[in-house]
Amino acid sequence: MTSEEFRRWGKALVDWIADYREGVERFPVLSRVVPGEVRARLPAAAPEAGEGFEAVLADLEEIVLPGITHWQSPSFFAYFPSNASYPSVLGELASAGLGIQGMLWATSPAATELETCVLDWLVPALGLPEAFLSSSDGGGVIQDTASSAALCALVAARERATGGASNESGLRGGLTAYTSSQAHSSIEKAVRIAGLGTENLRLVEVDEAFRMRPDALAAAIDADRRAGFTPAFVCATVGTTSSLAVDPVAELGPICHDSGAWLHVDAAMAGTAALCPEHRWLHSGLEHADSYCFNPHKWMLSAFDCSAFWVRDRAALVRSLSVLPEYLRNVATESGQVIDYRDWQVPLGRRFRALKLWFVLRCYGLEGLREHVRRHVILAEAFASWVEADGRFELAAPRVLNLVCFRRKGSDELNQALLERLNASGELYLTHTRLGERYALRLSIGQTRTEERHVRSAWERIRAEAERLES
Amino acid sequence: MTSEEFRRWGKALVDWIADYREGVERFPVLSRVVPGEVRARLPAAAPEAGEGFEAVLADLEEIVLPGITHWQSPSFFAYFPSNASYPSVLGELASAGLGIQGMLWATSPAATELETCVLDWLVPALGLPEAFLSSSDGGGVIQDTASSAALCALVAARERATGGASNESGLRGGLTAYTSSQAHSSIEKAVRIAGLGTENLRLVEVDEAFRMRPDALAAAIDADRRAGFTPAFVCATVGTTSSLAVDPVAELGPICHDSGAWLHVDAAMAGTAALCPEHRWLHSGLEHADSYCFNPHKWMLSAFDCSAFWVRDRAALVRSLSVLPEYLRNVATESGQVIDYRDWQVPLGRRFRALKLWFVLRCYGLEGLREHVRRHVILAEAFASWVEADGRFELAAPRVLNLVCFRRKGSDELNQALLERLNASGELYLTHTRLGERYALRLSIGQTRTEERHVRSAWERIRAEAERLES
Repeated sequence: MTSEEFRRWGKALVDWIADYREGVERFPVLSRVVPGEVRARLPAAAPEAGEGFEAVLADLEEIVLPGITHWQSPSFFAYFPSNASYPSVLGELASAGLGIQGMLWATSPAATELETCVLDWLVPALGLPEAFLSSSDGGGVIQDTASSAALCALVAARERATGGASNESGLRGGLTAYTSSQAHSSIEKAVRIAGLGTENLRLVEVDEAFRMRPDALAAAIDADRRAGFTPAFVCATVGTTSSLAVDPVAELGPICHDSGAWLHVDAAMAGTAALCPEHRWLHSGLEHADSYCFNPHKWMLSAFDCSAFWVRDRAALVRSLSVLPEYLRNVATESGQVIDYRDWQVPLGRRFRALKLWFVLRCYGLEGLREHVRRHVILAEAFASWVEADGRFELAAPRVLNLVCFRRKGSDELNQALLERLNASGELYLTHTRLGERYALRLSIGQTRTEERHVRSAWERIRAEAERLES
Repeated sequence: MTSEEFRRWGKALVDWIADYREGVERFPVLSRVVPGEVRARLPAAAPEAGEGFEAVLADLEEIVLPGITHWQSPSFFAYFPSNASYPSVLGELASAGLGIQGMLWATSPAATELETCVLDWLVPALGLPEAFLSSSDGGGVIQDTASSAALCALVAARERATGGASNESGLRGGLTAYTSSQAHSSIEKAVRIAGLGTENLRLVEVDEAFRMRPDALAAAIDADRRAGFTPAFVCATVGTTSSLAVDPVAELGPICHDSGAWLHVDAAMAGTAALCPEHRWLHSGLEHADSYCFNPHKWMLSAFDCSAFWVRDRAALVRSLSVLPEYLRNVATESGQVIDYRDWQVPLGRRFRALKLWFVLRCYGLEGLREHVRRHVILAEAFASWVEADGRFELAAPRVLNLVCFRRKGSDELNQALLERLNASGELYLTHTRLGERYALRLSIGQTRTEERHVRSAWERIRAEAERLES
């Protein structure tokens, strides 16, 4: 492809994307293809000869698009949002266009320094502890996901608990980890990958609002210590996936500190809200945290993947993950004056992800991002009030921020059937969870373009389908 | 940003990228900024109010560009190439524009099915075993990097060796892993992360061409078994980072099989060459491999990140990495008819990376990709012949494919000084390694736009700087 062709097709694709975004409400939110349907429309073998981009763009429209579940639809209320705002799309385009690989400072100093800069910007913007600033002993890094951030935190915790011995000699049992029974599955996954074993992850009891109970954590840690285990890692959640429950970090922190366990705080979804002073309470107690992460790719309008991860002691993280072979040695690294982010993550190579975060922060400004958060929270408040005002429905958990968990009064089967009908309608996409052993629907409001009319029409559709189910 | 503004700025950015690529030879290949220089030009805090994109684009040019090391320059001969060809840039743009997150089949069936399709296409195209096809018990998945692929392979190997016990009860020592003394640092990193410990990674001796010695592997495994260890994982390298040495997989395979160890083959750079029948020998013996990866983001023109990873037994991989919480349950997953790629990797979330690979395969065709490989190999052959014809220089390892390791006859310090002068010239960018305890320069030829004139002028500059050093 020549530069001229790239200019032509790049611009055509920009228009295609804008057309797609403008017309996204035309499509069923959850794709209707059946297993194998997309694959069946693709050739059995790669082409021998190159084709023109026109054919590729046509197939993108005709073969791929029907198999897309529209995360950028304003009626996407499933899981958590994965916003890819226009400025962040431009950030991805610029990143791919520059085509650099930022494993070391030297392999593109701007990639490292811009990343450090935007993560430092976010420390005061989110009310994070100053210990997370790069000018302190800590610092921030962009990971692909909160799962990877949790794994890095756990490996650093494991090394701290064993004095570096598990990296050197291997893990020999004896370490325990703690998170609430409501925590994300990524914590169990990290515990397995790092070799601690699922049996050594304690799922601590929660209170009636699904928040980790400090007394239960203290009791679990105490029992383990008496049994000869070393409590190594606690993951508190600020905004659980099921119901956005916020663990009481300010009370959990001293318990972790007393036990010597590393405290990681996972605010993947909810963290963005702390941009607003009225939601800053989410970060209470973070001065106790050894590490923290939230995902700008969820609610902060930055295209997936972009998970922001900070540590209080960057040396502990780097000691756990750094292996320096000869072919990566260079003058800048050996000067000790630069950050090599390869030592802050699992992979060696790195995309230039700071660009999209920088584009978003500049194009929206902190005030613009706060407006998004506030608009979504107001919509969730309204939806929760409609649920509460309708005697046939009930909230399944307290409404927190932009997530409403609710159910049709009646059986789990009724609610499951309701969810399936709603998603089959194509008008909206919701997912479910279980709270206190009961099936519950989740309405997560956070897509860039979601307006009151989308939430209102979702509620109308929910009521109508529930009525049809009963008739 | 409105759709109209996105159309305007997206097109401006497409032109900016094309201008950048066309003019990339104007810049010093290795950035000349000093530590802190980029950061010093950025504001201390995030903006409160949003700014127009014009200001962002201006800063991209004025602040970011001087801090870029130009991986897309035809005179980038460092490390290995990280090609971001135009079709792959369009693939990244389309992926960001659609903004989907493909953790589950249901969250965008086309993302999963297109990924399975292009990875199946590559099986015959690269001469990989049919056992890697999704229609068999195996299958392929796109990872971010070969580091992550190695970690996933190692975790699956660990579980196979312990009958699933380490995931459940945690690792309690006793497992050993093997790779050559020339293998990539990512193997040691994976061994640490997975809890085996660096001491339990055996760095097997190599022959005079830096290839793993089968007799040394057999002896190491045998000694460990007699000492009560369980050999769990062997990583063979097809194209080492230092010198592109190719381990004799056909001879290593039966040794692994007899010992019960999982054989992973890392062909991150070299794998692409197997598209050409004359280089298909690279994949000899792969019928013994439990897993294999190569990086289309290196030599196959697909923008970073894109590492293609296959396993022979996908059930073993999924058993090792799958944790299914309620909020991810869905009808398609429970039907057993679909792949959920979240269970094939460390993170939960996934970008739609198959698009760029599909765009590249279609726009170049297999024949176009083979032409790139052949052109680069011919250039490396020429460069190696110039080195050999000049009595002041010598090859430091046999030339394999597109990598030439060489040195100025004389001390390591002389060669180190030569490398620093070359990179400071801005005309080209080379890196180094150590081979047989001796410092060596590496000239890696693989950038999309590298032509004979770039390689010829690199050689002239190398000779000229060497002469200046001695005068």
